[in-house]
Amino acid sequence: MQPYDVIRSKRDTKLLDSRSIPADTRRRILQAGRMAGSAKHSQPVRFVVVEDAALRQALAACGDFTAQLAAAPLVIALVVLPGSGQHDPERAVQFDAGRAAQNMMLAAWAEGVTSCPNTMHRNEDAARLLGLPDGCRIAQVLLFGYPAAGDSGRPARSRLPLDEYVHWNRWGE
Amino acid sequence: MQPYDVIRSKRDTKLLDSRSIPADTRRRILQAGRMAGSAKHSQPVRFVVVEDAALRQALAACGDFTAQLAAAPLVIALVVLPGSGQHDPERAVQFDAGRAAQNMMLAAWAEGVTSCPNTMHRNEDAARLLGLPDGCRIAQVLLFGYPAAGDSGRPARSRLPLDEYVHWNRWGE
Repeated sequence: MQPYDVIRSKRDTKLLDSRSIPADTRRRILQAGRMAGSAKHSQPVRFVVVEDAALRQALAACGDFTAQLAAAPLVIALVVLPGSGQHDPERAVQFDAGRAAQNMMLAAWAEGVTSCPNTMHRNEDAARLLGLPDGCRIAQVLLFGYPAAGDSGRPARSRLPLDEYVHWNRWGE
Repeated sequence: MQPYDVIRSKRDTKLLDSRSIPADTRRRILQAGRMAGSAKHSQPVRFVVVEDAALRQALAACGDFTAQLAAAPLVIALVVLPGSGQHDPERAVQFDAGRAAQNMMLAAWAEGVTSCPNTMHRNEDAARLLGLPDGCRIAQVLLFGYPAAGDSGRPARSRLPLDEYVHWNRWGE
């Protein structure tokens, strides 16, 4: 696929099959996250790859819609460090985490691996499970895997038309 | 470039030349932002393309490191709607804005157009300039353009080694 086709065709899904992800693909996913830019080059995002089965099970219980974490072929928690030296650090680190997440999910999708972010509704419990230092929190937990048979990885959730997304110069114009 | 090469080679820079961006490239940049996923498919991000010269000048004065906005070939404010129906909406919309931004900046870079997010330190002033509805705020303002002559678009800012980004199962492991 061309880069633009990767970007526009990527859909979030948690419907995965059990095929494992090759080590070199996994490495490119992690590198893609590392290469995402950040405010003032602060590099505030870290990745915890959760492979331990009991730990995944426990993590899956920290969100309301996260049962799939227990069995996903690849689970990566995006951890944000306490913002420092940034304006509005709490917002800045979440924005930067989103940038890293998108890099990772696009690098995966370019190789046919689909993915989805997962909110940890009980964030402090999840942080404790992963042994995060004080002040760190989990932005989202990403799951990755090949699309389940019968699922194209592109569920038919339409987007608002482009005209509703875009304004010119001022809101409403 | 292959998709992975686009992702790993993208660097943020504000050093642009004055060449304008073709309309079809601009359209793909906007589409890429539209196609980014969001929490619960809430689609909370909007794009204000700022073309008016006086408005850009005024916007450039709303940040501390944003003088380049006045003359950049393409300026797009990423606006986040008030979070609704989401857990932890303030964080969720910033994460989703980061996803949309990365899609847009990668779609641009795939066509040789570089970019950089800009923080609006005086966010309320900037929101007023763009006539945003109550409760909306600007996540970041993206500038886009071709790299300035003598600037490769890839300044030599190194990243921490991958080992410092990645932990296995638990922090520190």
